Amino acid sequence: MSAPENRNGLPVLSVAESGPSERAAERGDAARNRVLLLDAARRLVDERGADSVTTDDIANAAGVGKGTLFRRFGSRAGLMIVLLDEDEKAQQHALLFGPPPLGPGAPPLERLLAYGRHRLKFVDTHHALLSDVGRDPQMRFNAPMTLHHSHVRLLLDEAETTGDLDAQAAALLALLDADYVHHQRTDLGRSLESIADAWETVARKLCGT
Amino acid sequence: MSAPENRNGLPVLSVAESGPSERAAERGDAARNRVLLLDAARRLVDERGADSVTTDDIANAAGVGKGTLFRRFGSRAGLMIVLLDEDEKAQQHALLFGPPPLGPGAPPLERLLAYGRHRLKFVDTHHALLSDVGRDPQMRFNAPMTLHHSHVRLLLDEAETTGDLDAQAAALLALLDADYVHHQRTDLGRSLESIADAWETVARKLCGT
Repeated sequence: MSAPENRNGLPVLSVAESGPSERAAERGDAARNRVLLLDAARRLVDERGADSVTTDDIANAAGVGKGTLFRRFGSRAGLMIVLLDEDEKAQQHALLFGPPPLGPGAPPLERLLAYGRHRLKFVDTHHALLSDVGRDPQMRFNAPMTLHHSHVRLLLDEAETTGDLDAQAAALLALLDADYVHHQRTDLGRSLESIADAWETVARKLCGT
Repeated sequence: MSAPENRNGLPVLSVAESGPSERAAERGDAARNRVLLLDAARRLVDERGADSVTTDDIANAAGVGKGTLFRRFGSRAGLMIVLLDEDEKAQQHALLFGPPPLGPGAPPLERLLAYGRHRLKFVDTHHALLSDVGRDPQMRFNAPMTLHHSHVRLLLDEAETTGDLDAQAAALLALLDADYVHHQRTDLGRSLESIADAWETVARKLCGT
């Protein structure tokens, strides 16, 4: 069967499979599936830890086919990076625009201490994701870590901390590194609370209080 | 041909190929080749950096066959780990038994500051080797790093530093991490001297001086 022709004898492209409204619906489905998959993955990672969550688990929990997961995210790692990225963005929003003492409005030292405890919980929850990403030294020191560095450096500066602020910010962030915290938790059996307290003593010393 | 028999009619194992003296000579050759290969590798790594040194280069410079390198060290990585291990041991010896201010005999803060500058040079020289090894988080926080942690912690303690000494030792060591120092050098263009100065300000603050 030849392609249909319009009145001018030029071929007409078939729109039966992908007309404007179908394409919009497809985009809507894609967006919906993306949200379903990310929500399911976030829930499963929270419940079991990232290491124990497979693509089958995520697709099943989201109620979509595994092929859809791979079409949307390329791979399990791709989905996990998007997940981490969304959670990082939510945390960054809380730091910059959220209520005090994490967000603006509290004295700088108070904000810094709130940041330490908040970030510690974050890296503990997201350990498996952050550890994967952090294995690459480019990721350990470049974006998105530069935002955390700038944030800590700014608070040190606002707290009128003396000395090399970049080195001090780097030192404080190293104590919030996902692998370091994981090592403290699993190899040394320390509680999150005691790691947070230790971090606070270092932060207070650097701020001279 | 049957096996030769001794006077009691018991079979005698042939020693023609590996008698005691030949075996000793073989062990002597093996030890000599090991030293030749390590010396050549150390020289080439110093000259060009570890990334630019191949097993061909090392075998050629040592004047032995490449097969010998693989028999002695298993792989290029195996040789590099032995090389790093020998250099780490030499540094540890200098910390524990060498002359002051790095070794015993100087005041603790002075020893700590000497340690920072010495270790910084070490991780800068050995970046490629340490970076390979440090990619594994087990290696970043367990042996041989525990020795460095103990050393810094002891000096902080001797300097009568207050607060959580483990956290402060970890923070100081994080600023001497090979990948961190490499990032400072290459991505931010900082000199070893300025990194060492920054480290000193953090160490002095933690020691309360």
